Amino acid sequence: MNDTFLRACRGEEVSYTPVWLMRQAGRYLPQYQSVRANVDFLTLCKTPELAAQVTLQPVDILKVDAAILFSDILIPVEAMGMRLEFSDKEGPVLSEPIRSRASVDRLSIPDTEEDMPFILATIRILKKELDNKVPLIGFSGAPFTLATYMIEGGTSKNFLHTKKMIFQNPRLFDFLLEKITATIVPYLSAQIKAGAQAIQLFDTWAGMLTPVDYKNFVLPYVKKAIAELKKEGVPIIYFVNDCAGILKEIKKAGADVFGIDWRIDIGDAIKKLGKKVVVQGNLDPCALFLPREMIEERVKDILWKGEYAKGHIFNLGHGVLPETPVENVIAMVEAVHKFGQKQ
Amino acid sequence: MNDTFLRACRGEEVSYTPVWLMRQAGRYLPQYQSVRANVDFLTLCKTPELAAQVTLQPVDILKVDAAILFSDILIPVEAMGMRLEFSDKEGPVLSEPIRSRASVDRLSIPDTEEDMPFILATIRILKKELDNKVPLIGFSGAPFTLATYMIEGGTSKNFLHTKKMIFQNPRLFDFLLEKITATIVPYLSAQIKAGAQAIQLFDTWAGMLTPVDYKNFVLPYVKKAIAELKKEGVPIIYFVNDCAGILKEIKKAGADVFGIDWRIDIGDAIKKLGKKVVVQGNLDPCALFLPREMIEERVKDILWKGEYAKGHIFNLGHGVLPETPVENVIAMVEAVHKFGQKQ
Repeated sequence: MNDTFLRACRGEEVSYTPVWLMRQAGRYLPQYQSVRANVDFLTLCKTPELAAQVTLQPVDILKVDAAILFSDILIPVEAMGMRLEFSDKEGPVLSEPIRSRASVDRLSIPDTEEDMPFILATIRILKKELDNKVPLIGFSGAPFTLATYMIEGGTSKNFLHTKKMIFQNPRLFDFLLEKITATIVPYLSAQIKAGAQAIQLFDTWAGMLTPVDYKNFVLPYVKKAIAELKKEGVPIIYFVNDCAGILKEIKKAGADVFGIDWRIDIGDAIKKLGKKVVVQGNLDPCALFLPREMIEERVKDILWKGEYAKGHIFNLGHGVLPETPVENVIAMVEAVHKFGQKQ
Repeated sequence: MNDTFLRACRGEEVSYTPVWLMRQAGRYLPQYQSVRANVDFLTLCKTPELAAQVTLQPVDILKVDAAILFSDILIPVEAMGMRLEFSDKEGPVLSEPIRSRASVDRLSIPDTEEDMPFILATIRILKKELDNKVPLIGFSGAPFTLATYMIEGGTSKNFLHTKKMIFQNPRLFDFLLEKITATIVPYLSAQIKAGAQAIQLFDTWAGMLTPVDYKNFVLPYVKKAIAELKKEGVPIIYFVNDCAGILKEIKKAGADVFGIDWRIDIGDAIKKLGKKVVVQGNLDPCALFLPREMIEERVKDILWKGEYAKGHIFNLGHGVLPETPVENVIAMVEAVHKFGQKQ
């Protein structure tokens, strides 16, 4: 098996820098589009054969060093009892957003095998079909990020409802975060038991908080989740979008790998996180619209700086954009494999 | 005259930390709402008596230490020849976004007195009505931020069109930025000549770039604009939203004051900018939803850390949100004035 990705996660020696991309299975791939043409997004997530099929597409097409389960971060939120829909324009819509004690009380803590069996079925198919070619990454939204969707009812510009709850009713917010953490820990453990060989926690919106609010209202739950998941023995990646101002706090989360966005120089991020950590990132997804030779320059720059960390996994600083030319994504992966060779 | 704000801008000794708020004239004020009830937003911007009236409201109601001209950052963009409309849902809409050489060629460099006379008329009324009570701040969008609106046709999530132009046609992008810079420098000079005693450049979207792209495609034009404006002899404030990852570059802009958002600890920001700079900021606008005593705690923390800079002007890290309770804004200003007294 190509275990370069897993070795890099553990900070072990590797013969080259491994690479995968957030949202590597997605709309920029014509092969994905043709699967999606016959089925809506949520149905795709919940149909194991199809979810497995689109998970495998980028492994074959891009030759990345890891597969990531095709799913949505809001799947466990729906399983907690909220109604989830996807609108083409607005993205995810959760009706009846969580704003009161009663609405938090109504949420259940789902059982993965019973309430999200398709997730485990997808992983089991993938384990067979990947046949140990590359490792499989499982994932979940981090507690805070899931909470923002639940409180806002979808994506948000200012996260005002979330911050209002934090600021005006911090005990209710804590109560909600506890319930989410109690959901995602067994959810991720189940993914690992079914065959996921690494886990990524996505904290897409944690960067919208001040450092002190991050420290008080986000970090404790991430730390708790990571500490419990570490018992499963697989690497835990913690990705925080817009992380530059809160790296000092983020490093306390206890993750094996820290995923960073593109708004900070990866060398600066390593200085703040400390050279003993493994980092993942951080090409601007829009840099995939550069001419090929300039993509190579940016890849080289990030690889060069990544050498200063204990380990480096190449990735984008956020998900692949739907408009991205596939050939540029392939060029990027090739550049990482070419220029990321260790002497 | 209360010149505390101007003294702080220049890094001179002050008896207390001055305070004003981005978007202090706005929808959260019932007095503003009642003016807006009879007139649409753009007409309000273009009617000097009304624009002056709403500019003065927060000075009287909040007792802030500076007034800022009520206007919109896209006024000079409209004067360059683009059609500007405001939709309640989507915000500003610029039809026929700039994507080609021909569309850049079609843009004119407006004359402020001729093409935006209402701006200067508003300032002249304000100078009379303020009667030197507090200084008046003029402003403009920074070149990059104005370019994003012009290229995207409004606000954006990923700024893909802007980055595509930067990445695929950097000469066209430079050409556009030169034209915008050539517009805003005389525009701001005219504001100063009409009576503005300080200038703020708003770079709301510069934080969406990688540090290297900021350095190559944003900084040269900001530097140029600031260098030329400095000849006018008034303090220049440069506000960059989402600045944490690019502070090392931002400090090269040559501004008198650096405005920072709330996603970074102001103490950390000062460490990066250097103790010789004056900083402005950086309370999270959502912190105005905290209970009064907790607003005071946050104000005290920022004031305490602000002491480490050469000067500090208290402000939010972004504009006041329309939903903000007025009494909390007043409480914040009172807290700054109370706890910001120098011994």
